[in-house]
Amino acid sequence: MKIAVDAMGGDFAPGVAMEGTAQALADFPDYEIVLVGHTAKLKFYLEKYGIAGHPRITLHHAPEVVEMRELSSTSLRSKKHSSLTECARLLKSKEVDGMVTAGHTGATVAATKVLVRTLPGVDRPALAASMPAQGGRFLVVDAGANTDCTPTNLVQFALMGEIYARFLYKKDHPRVGLLSVGGEDVKGNDLTKKVFPVLDERVPNFVGNVEADTVFEGAADVLVSDGFSGNVFLKASEGLAKSTIYWLKEVMLKNPLRMTGAKMLTNAFRELKNYGSSEVIGGAPLLGINGICIIGHGGSTPLSVRNAIRVCGECIKFRLNEQIVESLQNAHCTTAELAEIERRDA
Amino acid sequence: MKIAVDAMGGDFAPGVAMEGTAQALADFPDYEIVLVGHTAKLKFYLEKYGIAGHPRITLHHAPEVVEMRELSSTSLRSKKHSSLTECARLLKSKEVDGMVTAGHTGATVAATKVLVRTLPGVDRPALAASMPAQGGRFLVVDAGANTDCTPTNLVQFALMGEIYARFLYKKDHPRVGLLSVGGEDVKGNDLTKKVFPVLDERVPNFVGNVEADTVFEGAADVLVSDGFSGNVFLKASEGLAKSTIYWLKEVMLKNPLRMTGAKMLTNAFRELKNYGSSEVIGGAPLLGINGICIIGHGGSTPLSVRNAIRVCGECIKFRLNEQIVESLQNAHCTTAELAEIERRDA
Repeated sequence: MKIAVDAMGGDFAPGVAMEGTAQALADFPDYEIVLVGHTAKLKFYLEKYGIAGHPRITLHHAPEVVEMRELSSTSLRSKKHSSLTECARLLKSKEVDGMVTAGHTGATVAATKVLVRTLPGVDRPALAASMPAQGGRFLVVDAGANTDCTPTNLVQFALMGEIYARFLYKKDHPRVGLLSVGGEDVKGNDLTKKVFPVLDERVPNFVGNVEADTVFEGAADVLVSDGFSGNVFLKASEGLAKSTIYWLKEVMLKNPLRMTGAKMLTNAFRELKNYGSSEVIGGAPLLGINGICIIGHGGSTPLSVRNAIRVCGECIKFRLNEQIVESLQNAHCTTAELAEIERRDA
Repeated sequence: MKIAVDAMGGDFAPGVAMEGTAQALADFPDYEIVLVGHTAKLKFYLEKYGIAGHPRITLHHAPEVVEMRELSSTSLRSKKHSSLTECARLLKSKEVDGMVTAGHTGATVAATKVLVRTLPGVDRPALAASMPAQGGRFLVVDAGANTDCTPTNLVQFALMGEIYARFLYKKDHPRVGLLSVGGEDVKGNDLTKKVFPVLDERVPNFVGNVEADTVFEGAADVLVSDGFSGNVFLKASEGLAKSTIYWLKEVMLKNPLRMTGAKMLTNAFRELKNYGSSEVIGGAPLLGINGICIIGHGGSTPLSVRNAIRVCGECIKFRLNEQIVESLQNAHCTTAELAEIERRDA
């Protein structure tokens, strides 16, 4: 099993990616890693983390890097040999079974869509982000790969998310909910109203509309959304979580009694912070691409990278993509089969 | 100045609405209140809160109540004499200058749209919810009145929100941001991309695209959005805030040391909770309706109702609606003037 790791991706590249790779090599003896990046720049870190000349490492040279501030739409054309593009090329040519990057999400979506293409029967790929709920977790699909979606896209996001949730949450029958503005069946916007009956008919364990607040109470295991609202959902949560920490500090530092109390809760706050952390999962898969692609947070730690590599390997072993193709076929939800629904609605 | 109060609206009606009304009458000597509800059922509370026969109270009988679980689309037809509908009728006939309800948001939007209609030049009304940011607050417009929006709607939401933010936050030049999935100008979905140049040209202090996380750090005073994404933003925040309290309790009750620390922070946590509370503002105005309409949270307390009545009165004094009409005219953003943009985009 071969996995390409974008050594130049992420805010702390290449150090973090290299250290994470070293951990993965030590922990997963059946993984082979292709390190993609500026080889001259990687040498120092290969030595530093004791993996220079490691039998399960191959180096693949990529002279350029897509910076976080670049536009995803132009990065593919302007940097034809970025570490990201090279990872996608390796995935396309099947020289690797999967790729891991903590780089530019939009550019990764663009590069894999254009170079690797989607799975047979899949129209658009979707980013599946795992978030904490009371007493569990849930997946947001799509968390931001597509800003404008069709009913076909949402039906496929639901099925792809259902398969991934089976793997990630070890649940046989994950409940799939549609992100909407009211719990009743008839609530929502044009898109959710159109897709609701199709989800109801073709997606197993469809629990109907789910609101953005009740999902945190465990209303669904998979939250299906267009990538715009899904991204708003994800970022609003991240933003509020960060601000809550800011506000907590503000109120806790107001007098010595509170400061003492806060000190006694140091470990509790650390545990709380871990609830929201993506370190354990390492990253979000881009579901529907013809090859496993795991996208880590820009601020990934070595442990995140190590776990993104682990998840990538596990998805390969789980035969995630074969299962997605099968599920879409069984539910009669390939793009061609859903074309009739799109026509009916037009 | 006359304000209609929906006595039957909210989870704890009519008690909470009546107690809030009593407080408002005591605190604001120039407010006259028309209490709308089942008069026989109100008598007990009029006595209880010492406002029976109060010279500034009028009773207006409404035999029906729109329940929270009813569909907004059908509530207007099925209950022609609900307290909500009667409030809207009083507003339409100018028997009152404003109305306050803690009842069904969707039904309020429907009733006021159909009965009271929008202001001259305004296509659709928008719910403006005030939320906490680090070191301040910001408005989400639209927080859920319209699930599908046109560029015209978003431009008008921006201008209406800008006027309301001037009043609410006492800022001369509130910064207006467009909720999107990336900070760069070209990021977003079809709607945000279409409306961006119009906002840029016609809205004062337009700061461009704002992401759902950075707005909590104070990126904008007004966050413009279609009502679907705006509602997702609002509810995701509410849901995460609630879950954070749940998780906090979970980690703090794990051992005696932590429990002691938590006790020392009781007041700090109470202050933190107040950051998110809408009690001070009392409710969200439905901007663009031809009459002031303030919608409180279903779980409103007497203080929320009292403050919603206060805000309603202040909006009337501020001549909010006259200023909105003026602002739209000055910016050449009435529905008729924006029709050209809609055509250009079609």
